[in-house]
Amino acid sequence: MTTRFHELTGPQTATVLTPASVLLVPIGAIEHHGPHLPLVTDALMAEAAVEALVPRAREAGIDAWQLPTLQIAKSDEHCWAPGTLWLSGETLMDVLVEIGRSITTTPARKVVFVNGHGGNVALLQVANRELRRRFGLQTFSMPALGTAGRTSDDPTLPDEHGLGIHGGWAETSIVMHLRPDLVHPELFARNVPEWFDDYEMLGFNGKPVSFGWLSDDFGPAGIIGDPTAATAAAGKALFDEAIERGLVALGEIDRFTLPERTTLI
Amino acid sequence: MTTRFHELTGPQTATVLTPASVLLVPIGAIEHHGPHLPLVTDALMAEAAVEALVPRAREAGIDAWQLPTLQIAKSDEHCWAPGTLWLSGETLMDVLVEIGRSITTTPARKVVFVNGHGGNVALLQVANRELRRRFGLQTFSMPALGTAGRTSDDPTLPDEHGLGIHGGWAETSIVMHLRPDLVHPELFARNVPEWFDDYEMLGFNGKPVSFGWLSDDFGPAGIIGDPTAATAAAGKALFDEAIERGLVALGEIDRFTLPERTTLI
Amino acid sequence: MTTRFHELTGPQTATVLTPASVLLVPIGAIEHHGPHLPLVTDALMAEAAVEALVPRAREAGIDAWQLPTLQIAKSDEHCWAPGTLWLSGETLMDVLVEIGRSITTTPARKVVFVNGHGGNVALLQVANRELRRRFGLQTFSMPALGTAGRTSDDPTLPDEHGLGIHGGWAETSIVMHLRPDLVHPELFARNVPEWFDDYEMLGFNGKPVSFGWLSDDFGPAGIIGDPTAATAAAGKALFDEAIERGLVALGEIDRFTLPERTTLI
Amino acid sequence: MTTRFHELTGPQTATVLTPASVLLVPIGAIEHHGPHLPLVTDALMAEAAVEALVPRAREAGIDAWQLPTLQIAKSDEHCWAPGTLWLSGETLMDVLVEIGRSITTTPARKVVFVNGHGGNVALLQVANRELRRRFGLQTFSMPALGTAGRTSDDPTLPDEHGLGIHGGWAETSIVMHLRPDLVHPELFARNVPEWFDDYEMLGFNGKPVSFGWLSDDFGPAGIIGDPTAATAAAGKALFDEAIERGLVALGEIDRFTLPERTTLI
Amino acid sequence: MTTRFHELTGPQTATVLTPASVLLVPIGAIEHHGPHLPLVTDALMAEAAVEALVPRAREAGIDAWQLPTLQIAKSDEHCWAPGTLWLSGETLMDVLVEIGRSITTTPARKVVFVNGHGGNVALLQVANRELRRRFGLQTFSMPALGTAGRTSDDPTLPDEHGLGIHGGWAETSIVMHLRPDLVHPELFARNVPEWFDDYEMLGFNGKPVSFGWLSDDFGPAGIIGDPTAATAAAGKALFDEAIERGLVALGEIDRFTLPERTTLI
Amino acid sequence: MTTRFHELTGPQTATVLTPASVLLVPIGAIEHHGPHLPLVTDALMAEAAVEALVPRAREAGIDAWQLPTLQIAKSDEHCWAPGTLWLSGETLMDVLVEIGRSITTTPARKVVFVNGHGGNVALLQVANRELRRRFGLQTFSMPALGTAGRTSDDPTLPDEHGLGIHGGWAETSIVMHLRPDLVHPELFARNVPEWFDDYEMLGFNGKPVSFGWLSDDFGPAGIIGDPTAATAAAGKALFDEAIERGLVALGEIDRFTLPERTTLI
Repeated sequence: MTTRFHELTGPQTATVLTPASVLLVPIGAIEHHGPHLPLVTDALMAEAAVEALVPRAREAGIDAWQLPTLQIAKSDEHCWAPGTLWLSGETLMDVLVEIGRSITTTPARKVVFVNGHGGNVALLQVANRELRRRFGLQTFSMPALGTAGRTSDDPTLPDEHGLGIHGGWAETSIVMHLRPDLVHPELFARNVPEWFDDYEMLGFNGKPVSFGWLSDDFGPAGIIGDPTAATAAAGKALFDEAIERGLVALGEIDRFTLPERTTLI
Repeated sequence: MTTRFHELTGPQTATVLTPASVLLVPIGAIEHHGPHLPLVTDALMAEAAVEALVPRAREAGIDAWQLPTLQIAKSDEHCWAPGTLWLSGETLMDVLVEIGRSITTTPARKVVFVNGHGGNVALLQVANRELRRRFGLQTFSMPALGTAGRTSDDPTLPDEHGLGIHGGWAETSIVMHLRPDLVHPELFARNVPEWFDDYEMLGFNGKPVSFGWLSDDFGPAGIIGDPTAATAAAGKALFDEAIERGLVALGEIDRFTLPERTTLI
Repeated sequence: MTTRFHELTGPQTATVLTPASVLLVPIGAIEHHGPHLPLVTDALMAEAAVEALVPRAREAGIDAWQLPTLQIAKSDEHCWAPGTLWLSGETLMDVLVEIGRSITTTPARKVVFVNGHGGNVALLQVANRELRRRFGLQTFSMPALGTAGRTSDDPTLPDEHGLGIHGGWAETSIVMHLRPDLVHPELFARNVPEWFDDYEMLGFNGKPVSFGWLSDDFGPAGIIGDPTAATAAAGKALFDEAIERGLVALGEIDRFTLPERTTLI
Repeated sequence: MTTRFHELTGPQTATVLTPASVLLVPIGAIEHHGPHLPLVTDALMAEAAVEALVPRAREAGIDAWQLPTLQIAKSDEHCWAPGTLWLSGETLMDVLVEIGRSITTTPARKVVFVNGHGGNVALLQVANRELRRRFGLQTFSMPALGTAGRTSDDPTLPDEHGLGIHGGWAETSIVMHLRPDLVHPELFARNVPEWFDDYEMLGFNGKPVSFGWLSDDFGPAGIIGDPTAATAAAGKALFDEAIERGLVALGEIDRFTLPERTTLI
Repeated sequence: MTTRFHELTGPQTATVLTPASVLLVPIGAIEHHGPHLPLVTDALMAEAAVEALVPRAREAGIDAWQLPTLQIAKSDEHCWAPGTLWLSGETLMDVLVEIGRSITTTPARKVVFVNGHGGNVALLQVANRELRRRFGLQTFSMPALGTAGRTSDDPTLPDEHGLGIHGGWAETSIVMHLRPDLVHPELFARNVPEWFDDYEMLGFNGKPVSFGWLSDDFGPAGIIGDPTAATAAAGKALFDEAIERGLVALGEIDRFTLPERTTLI
Repeated sequence: MTTRFHELTGPQTATVLTPASVLLVPIGAIEHHGPHLPLVTDALMAEAAVEALVPRAREAGIDAWQLPTLQIAKSDEHCWAPGTLWLSGETLMDVLVEIGRSITTTPARKVVFVNGHGGNVALLQVANRELRRRFGLQTFSMPALGTAGRTSDDPTLPDEHGLGIHGGWAETSIVMHLRPDLVHPELFARNVPEWFDDYEMLGFNGKPVSFGWLSDDFGPAGIIGDPTAATAAAGKALFDEAIERGLVALGEIDRFTLPERTTLI
C-alpha cells in the first residue's frame, strides 16, 4: 500500500491512520536562489527529504506518511525578485491552520512540517502552537536537510564565514545531487557579507539578536554564500547525512507524547 | 531548457518570459472521492493535464509554462469526510491573489488556472476578475479534463443521468488510466440521485438554479455517479480527447488580448 | 398579512415561518450601465422580480417571503466607472454569511438569492455552500429575470452575437418596461465585441474557459450589447416570460429537500 | 431629473454631481422591535426621513441626493431575537468603507449617513473618520428622526423616564404615522427599566458612563419604552418636527467646509 | 496585597477575584498634542486616574483592580503627525476583544475602560457591546478625567468656545499638575476654530451631527483649544474634581447588575 | 531632556530623532507564571531592561530611546490559565505592523523589540521582516534579559536540566531582585520535565526540532523550571550581567546598517 496520505482513499484514512501515525508535510518555497539555482530549490529539497525519510522511518517501526508538498510558502524576503512566488505570513498561517483542522477528521494526531526554507522557520513555530491550542494536535517542525548543518569545515573549500544560508555551497551541492540539470555552474558567484564577522550577537538564525532583512539587502545577487566549490558528490554526502539525522529526529518525535487536550480555545 | 516555471532561475524568469507567455497553474483538490478513488484524484488530473498540454501547446507555437500544482484547494463540500484537506474560500482566494501579485514581478501577463475540481470553479471565476482588477493580469480558468464532458452516451454503460460529477464513470476511468494502482475496483458502487430527473431548472453546474450542497447530502458514500463500468481504456480515450480540446482552449487563450490596464484599484 | 419578512415583527417570524418557508432575497447592483440606463438597473430588476414572484408563488402553495433587497453588491468589473457603488467579494461574502447566520434564529431553512447582476453569480455559488456548511441552511441562487435568456432571435433586431450581457437589448427593454423615466434612448449605442465569434471555448458565462474582465476592457462605453432596438413592449414580454420561468424554479426549490445537517463546521 | 443618486446613469454622476453635492445615505436596521412594531422600523424611518429631506433641502439651495438605503446594519444587541438580520461591526465598517471608496470616483465629496438606528451611532462615528482619513471625503452622521428627541414631556402620557429608546412612544407613533398597517396596538406593553432613575452617570446614549447591553438584558420583551399611548397624530408631529430640525442640520452640513486632504493614509 | 491585577499570580486571580470585582483598564493614546504637551498625555491621564481611583473605590467597598494600561490606541486623527503611535480601529477592537476573552478565565465579570482619549470613545462603545454579546461580560467605559468637563467658565480665562478638546486649557493644566517637566509653556498657542459658534447642530462630541475630522483639518498646530492660561493649580483642581466624579461613576458601576447571559453568539 | 519617546512632543520627534536613533520597544507578557510569580513578570523584566539599557547606551554614544511597553502580547501557551491576558498571533502582528507604520512619520529608522517573553520570539522574527519589507525600517529583536542565559551551572543549585524556561531559578531570582514584594517563596515548587534528557534533537528554543506546546502540557503547575533556590542576589547578578550583554547587542545594532529600501511591497 502507498505511504502517501493523499494516495489513500478518504475512508482508508479513517482506518489506516492511528494516533501514533506521524504525518510528514514537506514545506519549501518557490523563490529566487540566485542565477545558478532553480526557484524550486527549497521545495525540491523538502520533498526529496520526506521521500527518503518515510521508507526509512517505516523500517524503524514509525508509522510515517508523506503528505502533499506545500511548495509556495513565506518567501517575503525575496519578494523583490522576479520569479518568487510568495505567500504573506498571514495567508500561510491560514493555510497551515486549515490543514491542521482538516487532519482532525482522521485518527492521526502527530503532524510534522519538514521544512526546506529558512524563511518558514519562525512562522512554523507559531503555527505549531496554534494547531496544538486550537485542535489538540501534536505538532512539530524540523529542517528538511539542515540538521547536519550546511557549511563545510573543509579548509580546501572557500570560507563562507558560517553564512552559507541561501544559494551557498551546501544547498547548491544538494541540488547538484538531486537535479543536476537545474544547476548553472557557469553562473556560480560568491556573495558573502564577511563583515558579519565583526558581529558577535547579531546575525542570522541562532544569534541572540534577530533582524529584519530582505535578500537584496546584501547585494543584487540575492544569495548569501559561496557556491563556487559545490559538487554533486558533496551534495550526496550532505543529503545522506541529513537523512540520517532526520531519522533520529523522527524517532524522537515518534516517542514524544504530550497529554490529550480536552479544552481547546 | 525546462518548461516548468519553477525550474527556471529567478533571473531567467525576467528574460525568458514575455507578455505573450501563458502560465498554466494546475489546481486540484485533496478530497474524499469515495472508497474507490484516492484523495489526490483531482490534483492528479490537473497536473497530468498540464504536463500533457505544455509540450503540445509549445509545438503549436504557444509559449506555455507549467507552474507548481495547487494541490489543496476548496473542498468544503467534503469537509465532513476523513482525509479531505481543504482551504476555506477566503484562504484560497488569498493564495490566488498572492500568486497573482508574485507573477507581476515577471514580464508574463497571462495566467491560466487549469482546474481539476468542480468545487473550485466559482471561486476561480471570482479570482480571475480580482487578479485582473488588482494587477492588470489577463486571467483564465479552464477545466483540466472536463472540456470533453465526463459522461458517456454509450448505451451499454450504466446511465448516470448526467450526474457523474464526483467519483463516477469518467473520473474513475481517467484515474485508472493515470494511476491504476490507486483505484479500488472491488469497492465500485453506484450512487446516483436519479430523482434530479424531476428537476429541470435546479441542478449541478450549468443549470439556472444553483444550490448549496455538501457531498454527504446525497448519501454516506459521498460520491455522485456510477463507477461500476469504469475502465482504463475509457480513461485513456477521455484523457486524450480532453487534451485535444484543452489545446483548442489554449490556442484561444493565446490569441485573446485585452488592453493593458493602467488604473488598478 | 404582509408577505415581506421585514414587515413582520420579530416574534411573528418565530411562529409564522416554518422550515418549508422560502425566503427570497433580491440582490442586484448599483453600477454603471452605460449612458442610457440607471445605476440601479440590476437592483431594480431583482426587486421587481421578487415582488412579482411572491404573490404568484403563494397562489401556487409556496410559503414565499420577500426579504430586503441587497442593492449594493459585487460590481468590481465596473469599479472604474463614476457612480458604481461596489463591495469587494470578501465583504459581500461576509454580508451573505451574516444574513444566513441571522436567519437561523427563525424556523425558516430555505433561502433563495434572486439575482439581478451577472457579477454576483459565482460569489453566490460560493455563498450557497458556505451557508449550508456553516448553518445547515438550504440555499439557492437563481437569476432574477434571466431564466428566459436575454437575447432575441428576432431577425429584425440587431444581432448581439449572443453578447447582450450588460446594457443590451433585453436589459434595456426591461428597464423601459419597469421605469421608462430612467432610460435615455437618445444615448442608445451599440457596443458588441463581435470578435468573440472567433472563439468557441472562451467567452462569457457558460463557456468552458472563463476569463477575468472589467467592463472597460471592451471599450470606454462600458456596456456589452446593443440597446438600439429596445422597447418597453419587448421588456414587458421578457419580464413576463421570466416570471413564468421563475415560478417553475421556485416550484422546484419548494419541493427540493436535502437532509438536516447536524454536524456543522 | 431624479434626485436619487442610483437613478442617475454612471456618466451623469460625473457631471451632475459636484464637490458641493451632499449625498444622503439612509441607514437603518432590520431588527426586533417588540411584538408591536415591524422589523423594518428603523430602515423605514431612515428612508422616510431622507425622502422628506431631499426635496426640502433642494428648495433651500442644497444639492442633496438620496442614495440607496442600507437596511441591514449593526443590530447585534438584538441578535438573540428571531427575525433580526444583523451585520457584525466589522462587516458594516467594511461596507461603509467600500461605499466611501466608490464615491471617490464621482466629483462628490460630502457624504451624510442619515441614521435610524441607535445601535449604529458609534460605528458611524468611527466610519466618518475612517472615510475622511482614507479617502479625503467630508463625512457626517445624523439621526434620521431623532433630532427632535423621542420622548414626550406631556404629563398626560405615561412617563418613560427618558428611556423610550426602542419601541417606545415616539418610535411607535412615527411608525403609526408612516405605516399604520404594520403596527399591532393590541400588543402594546410597557417595558421601562425605571431603576435607571437611581443612576446619574451611567445610562444610555449621552451619559458619561457607557455600558454594553443587549436588548433582552432588560426583560424578554426586548423593547425599552412605553408605546401604550402612541398615536399616528403624535407620530406625524414628531416626524414633521424632526424633518424641520434635519433641514437645519443639512444646512449646517452644506456650509461646513474642511480643507482638501492631499496626504491620505 | 497589591491592587494591580497584573501583580497577582495567575492562581490568585482565580480565588481573589469574584463576579463583583470591578476591573479598571486604563486606555489612553500616544499621540500628537501640539508643541507643548507630550505624546503620552492621554495615557498618562488615564493611568493617573485609575491609580487615584482604585484606593478610593476600595475604601468605598468596591472591589476595584487596576489592569495594565493600553497606552497605544486609536489615534487615527493624528496619523499625519510625527510621533503619533496609532492602531487602526479594527486592530484596537481585536485587542479589546481578546482582553475580554482572556478575562473570562477568571471569576471577574465587570470590566471598565477608563479612557483618557476622545478618539477612543465611539470604539469603546462598540467594544462594550461586543464583549457583552460574545463573552457575557458586563462592560463599561468612562472618561478618565472628563466627567468634570474640561473647559472653564472663569471669565478671566481665554474663551475656548467650548472647544478645548485637544491640548487646551484643561488638559494642559492637568499635565502641568501631573508631570510639569513634560510641558513646554513657552510654546503655548491658541488654536480655537471659533467659527463653530455659527453651528448649532454640527460639532464635536455631544452634538447631534457628527463629522469625520483629522486634527490638522483645523490648522497645522493640530490642537484644538487654548492652553495659554493653563496652570498646575488649575490642573490639580480639575483632577481632584474628576476623581470625585469618577468615584460616583464607579459606585454606580458597582451596583449595576445585568442578568447572566447564557446564550452567547 | 527625557529619553522616553512618548514623553517628547510630536514636533520634537521630527527634529530630535534621526535615522541613527535606536528606538527600544519593551515587549513582555501578562501571563501565568505559576503560584510564585506575578502575571506581570515578563513585562516587568522587559521594561526594567530597557530602563537600564537606555542611559548606559547613551553614555556609549548611542541615540537610544525608550518606547511604551507592550505589556500584553502572545501568551497563547498560557491561555488556559486564569489571569493570562493574551493576544492572538494575528492581532499582535497587526499591532506591531501599525506601530512600525507609525514610526515612519519620524526620521527614526531603527526599531528594536526588547523582549521579555519566549512566546514572542518567533512572531517578532516574522514581524522584523514584515516591517522591513513594508516600511523599509531596520528592525531587530533581542532578549531583554536572556543574553546571559537563564540557567546556572552552580552545582550547589538544583539541576534544571537546561529547562528553566518559565518560572524557574533565573526568572524567579530576577523578579526577587526587581520586585521582591511580588514573589511568593512559600509556593516555590520544582516542575522540571527531566525526561527531555532523553531527547537530543527535540526540545525548546534552540533545538532543531520545534514542537507545539501549552504550558499545562507539562503538568498543572504551568511552570517549567525549579525556583526553589532562587534569591534576589542571584537575580541582581543575572540582571547586571544581562544588561552588560544587552549593551554589546545595542552597540552592534547601532553600527549595523542595511541599505535604504526604495521599493516597498
